[in-house]
Amino acid sequence: MSTAGLFDLDSIAPFFQADSLAVIGASTEPRKQGGRPVRYSRLGGFRGKVYPINPGASEVQGMPAYPSLSAVDDPVECAFIALPAPAVEAAVRACISKGVRAAIIVSAGFAETGDRGRRYQDRIVALARASGMRLIGPNCMGAMDVARAFFPTFLPMWGDERHDAPKVGSISLISQSGAFGAHVYELARARGVGFAKWISTGNQCDVQVADCIAYFAHDPATRTIMVYLEGSPEPGKLIAALRLAREHRKPVILLKSGRSAIGAKAAMSHTGALVGSDDAFNGLCTQTGVHRAQTIDELLDIASACVAGKFPSRREVGLVTISGGIGALMADYAEQVGLAVPPLPQGTQEKLLKVFPYGAARNPVDPTALWARDVSVFGHSLRALLGDGGHEVVVLFASSVGTIPALRDAILTQVRAVRDQFPDRLIVVSMIGPAEVIAQWRSEGFPVYEDPRRALEVVAALAGFARLVAGKERLHPIPRAPHTPRIIPGEALNEFEAMRELECAGIPMTPRRLCGSRADAERAAASLGFPVVMKIVSPDIPHKSEMGGVALNLRTRREVAAAYESIMKRIKKGAPKARIDGVLLARQIAHGIETILGASIDPTLGPVVMFGIGGIFVEVYKDVAFRVAPFPVSEARAMIREIKGYRILAGARGRPPVDLECLARAASRLSLFAAANAATLVSVDINPFMVLPRGEGAFGVDALIERVRR
Amino acid sequence: MSTAGLFDLDSIAPFFQADSLAVIGASTEPRKQGGRPVRYSRLGGFRGKVYPINPGASEVQGMPAYPSLSAVDDPVECAFIALPAPAVEAAVRACISKGVRAAIIVSAGFAETGDRGRRYQDRIVALARASGMRLIGPNCMGAMDVARAFFPTFLPMWGDERHDAPKVGSISLISQSGAFGAHVYELARARGVGFAKWISTGNQCDVQVADCIAYFAHDPATRTIMVYLEGSPEPGKLIAALRLAREHRKPVILLKSGRSAIGAKAAMSHTGALVGSDDAFNGLCTQTGVHRAQTIDELLDIASACVAGKFPSRREVGLVTISGGIGALMADYAEQVGLAVPPLPQGTQEKLLKVFPYGAARNPVDPTALWARDVSVFGHSLRALLGDGGHEVVVLFASSVGTIPALRDAILTQVRAVRDQFPDRLIVVSMIGPAEVIAQWRSEGFPVYEDPRRALEVVAALAGFARLVAGKERLHPIPRAPHTPRIIPGEALNEFEAMRELECAGIPMTPRRLCGSRADAERAAASLGFPVVMKIVSPDIPHKSEMGGVALNLRTRREVAAAYESIMKRIKKGAPKARIDGVLLARQIAHGIETILGASIDPTLGPVVMFGIGGIFVEVYKDVAFRVAPFPVSEARAMIREIKGYRILAGARGRPPVDLECLARAASRLSLFAAANAATLVSVDINPFMVLPRGEGAFGVDALIERVRR
Repeated sequence: MSTAGLFDLDSIAPFFQADSLAVIGASTEPRKQGGRPVRYSRLGGFRGKVYPINPGASEVQGMPAYPSLSAVDDPVECAFIALPAPAVEAAVRACISKGVRAAIIVSAGFAETGDRGRRYQDRIVALARASGMRLIGPNCMGAMDVARAFFPTFLPMWGDERHDAPKVGSISLISQSGAFGAHVYELARARGVGFAKWISTGNQCDVQVADCIAYFAHDPATRTIMVYLEGSPEPGKLIAALRLAREHRKPVILLKSGRSAIGAKAAMSHTGALVGSDDAFNGLCTQTGVHRAQTIDELLDIASACVAGKFPSRREVGLVTISGGIGALMADYAEQVGLAVPPLPQGTQEKLLKVFPYGAARNPVDPTALWARDVSVFGHSLRALLGDGGHEVVVLFASSVGTIPALRDAILTQVRAVRDQFPDRLIVVSMIGPAEVIAQWRSEGFPVYEDPRRALEVVAALAGFARLVAGKERLHPIPRAPHTPRIIPGEALNEFEAMRELECAGIPMTPRRLCGSRADAERAAASLGFPVVMKIVSPDIPHKSEMGGVALNLRTRREVAAAYESIMKRIKKGAPKARIDGVLLARQIAHGIETILGASIDPTLGPVVMFGIGGIFVEVYKDVAFRVAPFPVSEARAMIREIKGYRILAGARGRPPVDLECLARAASRLSLFAAANAATLVSVDINPFMVLPRGEGAFGVDALIERVRR
Repeated sequence: MSTAGLFDLDSIAPFFQADSLAVIGASTEPRKQGGRPVRYSRLGGFRGKVYPINPGASEVQGMPAYPSLSAVDDPVECAFIALPAPAVEAAVRACISKGVRAAIIVSAGFAETGDRGRRYQDRIVALARASGMRLIGPNCMGAMDVARAFFPTFLPMWGDERHDAPKVGSISLISQSGAFGAHVYELARARGVGFAKWISTGNQCDVQVADCIAYFAHDPATRTIMVYLEGSPEPGKLIAALRLAREHRKPVILLKSGRSAIGAKAAMSHTGALVGSDDAFNGLCTQTGVHRAQTIDELLDIASACVAGKFPSRREVGLVTISGGIGALMADYAEQVGLAVPPLPQGTQEKLLKVFPYGAARNPVDPTALWARDVSVFGHSLRALLGDGGHEVVVLFASSVGTIPALRDAILTQVRAVRDQFPDRLIVVSMIGPAEVIAQWRSEGFPVYEDPRRALEVVAALAGFARLVAGKERLHPIPRAPHTPRIIPGEALNEFEAMRELECAGIPMTPRRLCGSRADAERAAASLGFPVVMKIVSPDIPHKSEMGGVALNLRTRREVAAAYESIMKRIKKGAPKARIDGVLLARQIAHGIETILGASIDPTLGPVVMFGIGGIFVEVYKDVAFRVAPFPVSEARAMIREIKGYRILAGARGRPPVDLECLARAASRLSLFAAANAATLVSVDINPFMVLPRGEGAFGVDALIERVRR
């Protein structure tokens, strides 16, 4: 199922692909916002046309200038608007008249400044929409296509401050924040990492981060996508765009700031209280194969390592170290990031120990200080791991040894020769020393990190992308449920109604009866089979236990009758005005594991499903997993395996494993239900959802559905 | 209670303080191991005497050389031995004859190469011990006192490879691994961080890491102690040394590699299986106020930030950012590391918004791109946070802006002026750009980190040291238990015996009786009060339940009698040869929270105590805390508060809080018991230790003591 149809990619193309650019507010000052695109086009050698628009100058930085856009004879595809906010509307109108297809508004003073600015911004968007012109910004830094030297941006780049021209690469960056994008650009520049395309979306009044991800998913020049995200106005588009990137086998590394406040409504229900959208966002990342970075360093470390295009298919690593201590530390790190450090074959170890008798040859390989006498120990060590050891990745810790003037060329020659012998393998280096030496290693395609921990983290992340890049992360089609009930707005459903709706949606619920009288209850108990539980059903009594509205473990008809009377008495006394829909009788389930299934409408992601182990521990350990709805059973299985308590479900400490298939099916069905009712649902809380031993099924025992009020 | 008496600090002093140094194996090659100390002494201008010993040269690097140590007329305090391993013994004998007080053996080929090397090493140690001479190494890089230019080390330092002389600072480093120490020295050098003293202990045949920590704790030139540790041969000394550092108010930042394998023996008992010594080591660090770093970067980041001597007393931070996005990210990080980001007073916010109307003034403070026009926005922002806001620490995120040639001096001038106005406050900077600009900021006392995450982590670590540096982390005296039973070697104690010993040690156990007959059991049950549990007591039946040796919830004398018969029948059938000590009857405890208290003898730390929430969840969530024994009740309280499940104990979800005082007292008593019996104990496992609601106490319900076999 392709979701490309959600995006009008052709209309976004001119932001990168245009052959003509008007700079509206072009400045004669090459360092001003309106001066930079002109300067960059000239310095970069842009082959298209650039039209500086400036009513007060006949030329701008040596180029003929135009008093207005309409004074340009030829057609203009893309416009860069760097004017004070009040002048932007007229400029947008001029663009529309001229038939411009794409306009970038870098000016500030719009929605980010309050309601007045927002209304002004909305007016401009309405104008553009009516004409079909796309907008980026306002309050952004623009965009660029480095290979084409197309620079409608005021991102600080070269000139006398930065001596080198932007470098062409295979990474494309989308940053909602201009300053963030500029920061990463500068960090990447210092590391010699180039970009294919770069864009900052600012207030994203029209083109959103999601549109750009979708565009880069299709862009042949982009192999890796970096994203900085604050929030997404249309969650569905973001999710679809990330799926597109996966379909196109492109790693996405994403940094998101700002944990959204938990919706006040959602906090009312128990499950809701656990739904932080940050956790849900982690679920989305897992689901779409996105690597969510925590730090800017991590974002760039991993994206730049993707450039080599080598993604180890096994989660293991070979280690070479010049320090036994740091070898031990690297082995610790490998374990922490989930990489095995398998030993070399015995024969290979013996061969290596002939070269360095006092060293270590198992893995980590430590040739000791012998490198000071003969740098070929590096070659021997690397070859042993890549050859006999069959490793796809080796991390070489070289401390400052690799940058010692007397040795560095010889060491690089050694390592280069091994790389040439194993061109499909990856050698990651951890090394410190002068920037120019590090730069040389990087320019030859070796990812270099100062701290060995980061080298190991990068290897783990590359391994995490392997299946995606190989096209093995197939998108499972989302099945259609046999019948998905539609929820209409209104008060919270009572428990009996909630269970009925969920059962219709394909989520098994415990056998039960709604009973209007004592006699009804007695008959129902007998037909359900003892023991039973009895619960008051009333829209006005959310906390049944506290009101004395629950009776457990009723073993006989007589106990049922007595319980009915005493519940009714307590309720009459405690909540005389409550509407009573009856009592709910259900078979008491004595075994199985308590879990929780919940759904809510996340403010930034839309419908999400939560799963966790139930009881008091879920609150304390917050051992829950999230997924964006809808999702297939295969994804539900992954969600269930993700929690720590999976061991309990799988049969820890001699317990029988539970009915995981039934649980996974229920979670997937709940996701279909939540997705179908995203507009009217507030939350679903199935707590507990009892999972019985394998083959015996699983049942919701209590359920709450909260709806949007009418 | 001072523990300085454990260390003979005077005998260690000559490794740093000697006025005379013999270099045995002095080389005419200034870059060889035996050449470096000679060269460094000359380059550094060491004011004491240096005696190159080399039978084949009359002079070494321009200094008169001696054919042997005995040929030196004057006394020699310290010797640096750089000879092939076989020649070391003779050199050590020569040192002893000469009256040398301290010898450094850098040569490899000793215990690290196997048994033969170990025996040779032991012989040399015996010689030195007999004479009172102290040894560092072998297989190490030596030591140095930078201020005195005393360099008995072959650590790569200045010369034509490294152009600058070592810098004097207030950090001292102890590294078990020479290469690790050299790596950190080089990293620190590149950052402009100086050292007071530096030592690598290698095989630590005599002087250990712990001795050096104790020495630096007393050393007036050392303000901060960095440690790289692999293992400690004498855990008691390590713990005492870390306590000494705390007494002397010196922050210790420590990196430890190599998670020790869990002792095979300890794995037999349930508690033992959870005792990974890495967790126990974390407990020790918490207990002694040590910051345990996970990465080399973290080790140096935090140690170098300590140099400023500013430790915020409140866990909060002010944030200034040139990027709104990164401001949000920094606020996320602050929350993650436990720092509050309190808003500025309303009036201050209004004043700031007059300076930058479209910016943010709450905290994070974001003056937006106005800095491009007027860098005084930095001064305004910082002053607002430090002045009206009363912040002790501000993190300034300046991206590459702070290094733009046209602005950088003006920005530094702004920030410097604020610092001078608030000299006791700390301004931490996150900035990227050319190394020389960063170096300038650092040289003026501003800690600078590329990634803002690291700036926040450092602030949190500094806040973590505040009480220690202020001398507020008082060492609580360890109380004497009323009576601590002594365990003698032998078989595992039976459950009844184990409970008796622990009860004698002051750890409450559930009321119980050991009964030798059915009639006995009936009488005991009646006197304990129903319901009771019955368990077989036999040294040969470790898994009582599986053998049918347990009966629960016995409500009447008759049920007790029946249970006795059926247990005996099952045991006779299932384990006919088992020795039967009787049955244990105890009151059945129906309420309270199951916890686990355990003790074991950690291979690197000695006696340690573990505490956790019990049941199946302890296995899955590993929510346990460790402390090195013995410890007072105050430390036990901290240990209990440390686990996530503390919320359950403190009364989550409407439960009553449990008897925490009784629990804490029991944990402390167990630590006294474990410490007193460290030599004969293998493990203690009190599982469950039931903790009842406050005021009702806590009781061990099952106990196992495993002893060292005779």
